[in-house]
Amino acid sequence: MPTRVVRVKVLFDARARIAALLWLVKPRVVGGDLGQATVRVVPRDLRRRVDELDATHDDEECGCDWRHTCASHQSMGGASHVIARDGRYGEVTEDDVKHFVRCVGGDAAGVVVSTSATATNLQDGGGDALDKYNVDWMGKYHGRSRVAVLPKTTEELSAIMARCHARNLAVVPQGGNTGLVGGGVPAHDEVVVNLGRMNAIVSIDEDAGVSVVEAGVVLEELESAVRARGMTVPLDLGAKGKCQMGGCVSTNAGGLRLLRYGSLRGSVLGLEVVLANGEVLDLLRTLRKDNTGYDLKQLFIGAEGTLGIVTKIAILTPRAPTNVNVALFGLDSFASCVELLKLARGRLGEILSAFEFFDRESLDLVLEQLKGTRDPLAKPCPFYVVVETSGSVKSHDNAKLQAFLKIVKNKRVIVDGVVGKDEKHAFALWTLRERISVALKYAGAVYKYDISLPTARMYNLVTTLRARLAPQFGSGVKVLGYGHLGDGNLHLNISCAEYTDALERAIEPFVYEYTRDERGSVSAEHGLGIMKAEEIIYSKDAKAVELMGAMKRALDPRGILNPYKVLPAATRAAALVPMSKL
Amino acid sequence: MPTRVVRVKVLFDARARIAALLWLVKPRVVGGDLGQATVRVVPRDLRRRVDELDATHDDEECGCDWRHTCASHQSMGGASHVIARDGRYGEVTEDDVKHFVRCVGGDAAGVVVSTSATATNLQDGGGDALDKYNVDWMGKYHGRSRVAVLPKTTEELSAIMARCHARNLAVVPQGGNTGLVGGGVPAHDEVVVNLGRMNAIVSIDEDAGVSVVEAGVVLEELESAVRARGMTVPLDLGAKGKCQMGGCVSTNAGGLRLLRYGSLRGSVLGLEVVLANGEVLDLLRTLRKDNTGYDLKQLFIGAEGTLGIVTKIAILTPRAPTNVNVALFGLDSFASCVELLKLARGRLGEILSAFEFFDRESLDLVLEQLKGTRDPLAKPCPFYVVVETSGSVKSHDNAKLQAFLKIVKNKRVIVDGVVGKDEKHAFALWTLRERISVALKYAGAVYKYDISLPTARMYNLVTTLRARLAPQFGSGVKVLGYGHLGDGNLHLNISCAEYTDALERAIEPFVYEYTRDERGSVSAEHGLGIMKAEEIIYSKDAKAVELMGAMKRALDPRGILNPYKVLPAATRAAALVPMSKL
Repeated sequence: MPTRVVRVKVLFDARARIAALLWLVKPRVVGGDLGQATVRVVPRDLRRRVDELDATHDDEECGCDWRHTCASHQSMGGASHVIARDGRYGEVTEDDVKHFVRCVGGDAAGVVVSTSATATNLQDGGGDALDKYNVDWMGKYHGRSRVAVLPKTTEELSAIMARCHARNLAVVPQGGNTGLVGGGVPAHDEVVVNLGRMNAIVSIDEDAGVSVVEAGVVLEELESAVRARGMTVPLDLGAKGKCQMGGCVSTNAGGLRLLRYGSLRGSVLGLEVVLANGEVLDLLRTLRKDNTGYDLKQLFIGAEGTLGIVTKIAILTPRAPTNVNVALFGLDSFASCVELLKLARGRLGEILSAFEFFDRESLDLVLEQLKGTRDPLAKPCPFYVVVETSGSVKSHDNAKLQAFLKIVKNKRVIVDGVVGKDEKHAFALWTLRERISVALKYAGAVYKYDISLPTARMYNLVTTLRARLAPQFGSGVKVLGYGHLGDGNLHLNISCAEYTDALERAIEPFVYEYTRDERGSVSAEHGLGIMKAEEIIYSKDAKAVELMGAMKRALDPRGILNPYKVLPAATRAAALVPMSKL
Repeated sequence: MPTRVVRVKVLFDARARIAALLWLVKPRVVGGDLGQATVRVVPRDLRRRVDELDATHDDEECGCDWRHTCASHQSMGGASHVIARDGRYGEVTEDDVKHFVRCVGGDAAGVVVSTSATATNLQDGGGDALDKYNVDWMGKYHGRSRVAVLPKTTEELSAIMARCHARNLAVVPQGGNTGLVGGGVPAHDEVVVNLGRMNAIVSIDEDAGVSVVEAGVVLEELESAVRARGMTVPLDLGAKGKCQMGGCVSTNAGGLRLLRYGSLRGSVLGLEVVLANGEVLDLLRTLRKDNTGYDLKQLFIGAEGTLGIVTKIAILTPRAPTNVNVALFGLDSFASCVELLKLARGRLGEILSAFEFFDRESLDLVLEQLKGTRDPLAKPCPFYVVVETSGSVKSHDNAKLQAFLKIVKNKRVIVDGVVGKDEKHAFALWTLRERISVALKYAGAVYKYDISLPTARMYNLVTTLRARLAPQFGSGVKVLGYGHLGDGNLHLNISCAEYTDALERAIEPFVYEYTRDERGSVSAEHGLGIMKAEEIIYSKDAKAVELMGAMKRALDPRGILNPYKVLPAATRAAALVPMSKL
């Protein structure tokens, strides 16, 4: 039977939190379509560092903790979903838990069970031992799993999956839990498979420029390890201190270095994957070139754990640049930003490593909300661009940048500009772009979208949406545009005093339809998760979605891997092989 | 019923040619397992330009023409196969041909039929109108198709495929026909779908650095078109004057720029594909970032036309470098070559664009066989490396190269070296590497392998094979190693006076087993085609091959797309959905 999907608007607030706690405390069995996962769909921009976020989040002031969703700190956007639990899946029993413990060799740290069902004094100040696995890092998506397993080896995970497959238990693979679309936490009572203890760096080959890691290695740890050998990871994310390599690969994470090193689809050379039935698929080659058959590993890159669980990764780790420059420019039109990008590609060529833009509305918000920031240029401009170069010889990079500055000034592409004179100044310039997200959070409610559009026309969505909203909502609703212009990736944000149905209806599905009509992507880098599983139709045609269902059917015919995610409910249902045929 | 595969050694010579002609002249119907495709499996190195090859091939001297395989000009390697025609496939009838003509709007140039069955005076000097579609460019693989269709639009191709699907007619998609593994010509009587007339450049977007082309656009034509706008195609091949973009994508062509721009898996942004049943799959996005579901286009990249027919491509076309330097170094060990690569990656960083190596044995052959070549350095060295840099500022590139030269001399990594002082000199240095293949052809028989291995240990295969062959075969058999060291891609060549069973048995399966044990690839860039379909097992484990079969089943359940290729016969047979269930 297809999973029933009902769209309703349920604000996740303190009452929901209390209800969830009550549910956890009261031991009961959920079956059939009775269980309802209430998820507040709240995308966020991950372009800032997680630790920076933590530092700017004033817990004292609002009295909230990480497990609680403080409405005043919420940013939001997108419709809310209530997705019914699929009664096809089994429920975890004591026998299953005992089996999992055996799978991890009796290691107590390898299986975490819910404490609320067994103890009257709840651990961790009233919380449950499973909270950290059930709730995403933003506290927006709340699952109800009763058990998390933390294998230390591929063999342990293989045994765990074989059990889950045999018992038809749904599973959610989890890395650093830093995702933005609810892909890494359970929707209901799925078994959480956390890869955090598979965290060995297997090898670093300086000659080949290739590193092999287990899925649980934190991005920043790999970066440190390869930096010590003069290399770098071709991927940099705000969440790098927490996100795991397996999660990065499974979400095809984009990030700040994409302009320079391209996507993970080119950088990842090999994978080891545990399949839904526990079989191990060994695609762990470290070769740059291999044309023997279909490139199966690409299926698992960006599949968000719905086709298999990535356990090991071979990834290119190129030589690290030794010299970095940052410049900030003011421009009088978006067309000039595009012209500047073209000139930067031509003149900075091989050293261009980032090209980010933001509009004046975004800068105003930063200056208004964040202490210690100041207008970077003498006069306000409608648009700003941050250009970063990374090269191997300082004098060459500086000379290229100076020549570039001269040309863009002479051609009057820019109004004004400033070059970071030292590391601190460069950081301050970057900050204006990086902290827009934080400023938005402080400013009130915000609807957030992560969209790819044709570069030259990208900003039209911002102006079109402004024109659409202004008559009805006036100046209280601000539409902001910023993002990775070099990658054609717009972060569209609608800042307002509070969330209203009227405003949401004015934005959606308009934004998705606009994106569809421009042949853009409704998720440039964040993935679909549980938040945008139904929205895939705006970026992929029906035949493509149908074929994705065929891939799901081929690799996970019981549908136990990360259910309720990525594909629309109807596609997922069609992908299931009837129990009678399994 | 699984296709029966019998390995026999049949030298394709004049007798086979006559037999094939007789077969063509005599109109008859081949059914069941009676038809036998005799293919002489002869890989070659495509690293040289096709036009260069043509110029060096002296037709007058041996009196052979392009359609004829001149034994003295043959290079070879690998086992020969006889693959039975699969009786499941229908045979092309007059009605089918009439239907195809309707599909292409009555355009006579859109459907080419065999002339030998209808005319006593054979066209084209005794050949058949179908020869150019039935025979690969090397004249090594000979199919027996009676009809080739040349659609001009996706819609026409869609209609053609719908007919083939309904009639269960096997189809071979064909581009420029420059492949090296027989993937682009029929094995038997498959309908040839040649994409050559779908050759429009749809768009070139300078702002985004993205071009969209139809599959039949020749690589060099696209290069010219984007060069005029200061951009380049991130792919360069010896066959660029003839190979088509659809074929490049379908074979995941590697080539000379891979070190700089990475593989097509990162450069191709979108595809339009006609599926086995004629449905059109529209994945033609031009976005650099799109994380909405599984990346289906990756399935078609490198699938050699077995999963769908690529009809349109969106590809990154980055800014062209304005300055190129070439240097050649002599070294006294392979370990020094690897050390040089490491230093080049660190010191030349962002401008390193090629790093090729060859051994003294290869150079000796070039000097011996090719007029006008001379020893590039004062004293012979056991190894040579060609380094190319491509950058945007000449003085910077020169300074980086000089600094690199100083370091590698001081560190005694190199014995000697020379920098191309002008374009002509640079070309002469490149020629020593580029023309090894041509020299091998002139030297006699040659067994050729295209292998990926861990960079640092790559050359061990050459020395191991030398030690293995020397006792039995003496100095008459030479083992040569050269290739793309920067990509970990070895071209292993065994040069000898003539092909013998004893020598072949001494090389194979040893080379494949060695590659397997090193977790290498038995086809780094040439693909599998018909030549190495069974050899996939040396580079992919059983589970991976099984899953490839599942992909085939999902996308082409009748197995009509490029049969007999890429996957082993048993896997292909298992992927077929029984006719009763279709």
